[in-house]
Amino acid sequence: MEQVKVGMQQDTIAAISTPPGVGGIAVVRVSGRDALRIVGEAWKGQPVEKMDSHTAHLGKYVATDGTLLDEAVITVFRCPNSFTGEDVAEISVHGSRWIQREVMADLIRRGARTAGPGEFTQRAFMNGRLDLAQAEGVVDLIASSSRAAHALAMSQTRGHFSRGLEEVRNELVELASLLELELDFSEEDVEFADRERLVSLASNLIRRLDRLAASYSSGAALKDGVPTVIAGVPNAGKSSLLNLLLGDDKAIVSDIPGTTRDTIEDTLEIEGILYRFIDTAGLRSTSDTVEGLGIERAREKMRQARIVIWIFDPTADLASQLEEYEKFAADNHTTQIITVVNKTDLMPGADLRSLAGDDSRSLAGDDLLAGDAPPYSSLPTFKTGAQSEGMKLNEAVWLSAKTGAQSEGMKLNEVVWLSAKTGEGVEELMGRLRSIATDGYDPQSEFIVTNARHYEALLKGSEALRRALSGLETGLSADFIAQDIREATTHLGTITGSVTTDTLLHNIFAKFCIGK
Amino acid sequence: MEQVKVGMQQDTIAAISTPPGVGGIAVVRVSGRDALRIVGEAWKGQPVEKMDSHTAHLGKYVATDGTLLDEAVITVFRCPNSFTGEDVAEISVHGSRWIQREVMADLIRRGARTAGPGEFTQRAFMNGRLDLAQAEGVVDLIASSSRAAHALAMSQTRGHFSRGLEEVRNELVELASLLELELDFSEEDVEFADRERLVSLASNLIRRLDRLAASYSSGAALKDGVPTVIAGVPNAGKSSLLNLLLGDDKAIVSDIPGTTRDTIEDTLEIEGILYRFIDTAGLRSTSDTVEGLGIERAREKMRQARIVIWIFDPTADLASQLEEYEKFAADNHTTQIITVVNKTDLMPGADLRSLAGDDSRSLAGDDLLAGDAPPYSSLPTFKTGAQSEGMKLNEAVWLSAKTGAQSEGMKLNEVVWLSAKTGEGVEELMGRLRSIATDGYDPQSEFIVTNARHYEALLKGSEALRRALSGLETGLSADFIAQDIREATTHLGTITGSVTTDTLLHNIFAKFCIGK
Repeated sequence: MEQVKVGMQQDTIAAISTPPGVGGIAVVRVSGRDALRIVGEAWKGQPVEKMDSHTAHLGKYVATDGTLLDEAVITVFRCPNSFTGEDVAEISVHGSRWIQREVMADLIRRGARTAGPGEFTQRAFMNGRLDLAQAEGVVDLIASSSRAAHALAMSQTRGHFSRGLEEVRNELVELASLLELELDFSEEDVEFADRERLVSLASNLIRRLDRLAASYSSGAALKDGVPTVIAGVPNAGKSSLLNLLLGDDKAIVSDIPGTTRDTIEDTLEIEGILYRFIDTAGLRSTSDTVEGLGIERAREKMRQARIVIWIFDPTADLASQLEEYEKFAADNHTTQIITVVNKTDLMPGADLRSLAGDDSRSLAGDDLLAGDAPPYSSLPTFKTGAQSEGMKLNEAVWLSAKTGAQSEGMKLNEVVWLSAKTGEGVEELMGRLRSIATDGYDPQSEFIVTNARHYEALLKGSEALRRALSGLETGLSADFIAQDIREATTHLGTITGSVTTDTLLHNIFAKFCIGK
Repeated sequence: MEQVKVGMQQDTIAAISTPPGVGGIAVVRVSGRDALRIVGEAWKGQPVEKMDSHTAHLGKYVATDGTLLDEAVITVFRCPNSFTGEDVAEISVHGSRWIQREVMADLIRRGARTAGPGEFTQRAFMNGRLDLAQAEGVVDLIASSSRAAHALAMSQTRGHFSRGLEEVRNELVELASLLELELDFSEEDVEFADRERLVSLASNLIRRLDRLAASYSSGAALKDGVPTVIAGVPNAGKSSLLNLLLGDDKAIVSDIPGTTRDTIEDTLEIEGILYRFIDTAGLRSTSDTVEGLGIERAREKMRQARIVIWIFDPTADLASQLEEYEKFAADNHTTQIITVVNKTDLMPGADLRSLAGDDSRSLAGDDLLAGDAPPYSSLPTFKTGAQSEGMKLNEAVWLSAKTGAQSEGMKLNEVVWLSAKTGEGVEELMGRLRSIATDGYDPQSEFIVTNARHYEALLKGSEALRRALSGLETGLSADFIAQDIREATTHLGTITGSVTTDTLLHNIFAKFCIGK
């Protein structure tokens, strides 16, 4: 049988690897067994098949009908030292649609095939250039639109995630081998002595897998943008706050139409983390059916959000704001709420910095709550301008202190005192956002789960291990336990692709763009 | 004074050269004196400043703050063997928006400057890598969206146009030197003997310039798409014809909204030539003001079009169609009209092929016109289906023969007998379209004017030469004539850029995309 070099078995695929459209240049990538021969037939200049790997050459691309399609630069990467591990030619043509289309058509005529989505990366995987998690990192890298998402994807592409997972798998293998030991000695009735260590190992592994799985909610939010609702009565300062957050050194990434037609998302990168700010209808009681539906949708968005920035407007009726806030907080224990009192610039005579700063905790004491708090209905409201003269800061303090007593979600020392107008408090708010978004994980960290498929595999692996643990504890036969451990190992193996199926590969690479 | 190498004077510019957006890869191009040093500072891998020209290297791009922005491939082109003639580095990064943005930002921090539109090509011009006409060919090449436009731009980029122009300039120089000869001998009164030859040379040159200038209407249409209106009564088969033309081997390029909101353009490449088919309101007499305005706009479009395909519907009232047709033809002598009679499939008992084919000319004779043609009002109309039984083909023949006598634009042998339903006649129609679009010029030809600036310079050059010719003929002093010839030379010089100004350069390169 003829010896075939790794990376030289596959037919030749071609695609435009640069973004679609017109530009200065576009890159056509060709990879496979016959890549250099096929491109070489069209190339006028130095013979392609004689070019050294990693060299670039100016020449002419001439179509089968003799048309000079372009004067272009070709770069050759020879098997196995290419992205795919195969022979690769990259043709850098002028970025006209016509040239891109005709060069592709000509390559097809000469025997190449249009690459499917992600097929270059799939070949890189098949040829052992990267594992499955790394390949998925490539998709995430291309899609990444914030520093945090980029850092996670880059780390995954570089194999840090895979290596972390490999450690876990190694421990699983150790567990399995200890169990084998037990199987070997099973006739001598020694199992119970060893099982304590096995139980400890298994418990430890389950904790690791669960912690990894738990990182997914942070990881996914960091990757795709943290869904954040800014809630509050109309005119509470939602758009002023957005503008403030937008500031000089922040980039607006895009406007994404919401999933329902009446919500709009502003995507914003703040300190490297992407937030998807979801605009909602102002919250208020209403008898109007249409408005009521809008508010219901807003509440729905708030329930789905990871973070709700709840803005109180001290110049509007506080009673109804508090009522709405407490109702939501009571029903949504898991939603992270940042309580903000806006328009501090309108509160006269107050040194708010002393409240918002390090000293704020001292005001959270019971002494404030000891007094007779007025009922909501009689709560004095802040008024703007001349009318606010004489208003006491105490009332705003009372607001937060009171709510702190009523609801777990709002404590005085957790209130952000904000002036969207002067910018006071915005750093504090950004700190809060970041802290919730990263949820204790450092986005630069190398071991966060960002991929739903990985998350699922980890859950399934953990589940199988729990069965194994339960078997160990109940004295089940080692055969059954070994089966569960093998299942856990298989689930983890699907993440890096040491265990894989055609369907799995198809599902993964279908998410790629063509040309990668 | 220090000797500076050509191509090493300029500061360093950077831009993304691939189309904007997300893709598998994107290419960041850096060019200038410090290109390799600037990129080298960010590059982890083989030292960039030691890389050989035309070599590609895998490595890491690390930002000034230490962030690993990407694992990328860098290709180095060393001065003067690069597109710009300067040191150039092309970094092929993953095509995420974030990476593209951050790499650009980092290059700026390190001392590069964002390139202006076309600034790379402008440098190529400044460094003598291409002349101005070639540089303009690069813009056209990138914008080209049909085979013909591509062929013209490619030819121009490769310098064929410039070389053709050079020949003309050389003749101008010959003319000028002959005139100098006359100046030298002016005291000996020999001028009139030489002037005959000068007159002949100048006349010949004027003819060449005029012929070149005349090619502009074809050239511009081939480059930008030939504006073509399909006119006819409602239901004459306009959209059926468009669909027929669209067929299998033709590509719809795009839908471009017309300049007025109520016209739509379908851009279609047929046999390598781009046509902009402009949809118009059906033509008919109307008392409705709004409809009347629409029809007026349609007529306006038709007047501006290069080609009008006028479809007669033999199943509708012919008299009004003929009336409308003749009115337009009489008012628009320069518009190229292709007269089409559609729905030949509905004409029973006729062998239309014999009419549309080679024999059609024999029917254009006077014998058909000799008879008493009925007045329009009594012209029998074709009816579809059962009613058309017994109708004579003669009536359709009469239609065209009659019109041939009435209007220069419509002759029997020029009518295309079409069935948009069966496809009969479509090849004939496509041949007509091509013939008018190219107007005798072969799009593969190397010397057609496609650029308004060149056209203008040619007209001005021709104008100056005409003055010189007139001077020669009227015996004007050689000094004055030499001045006119110098002016003509200058005008032609602006085309290739041997004569240039900052404003001219700015105007030209402002049309480029950034990154080219």
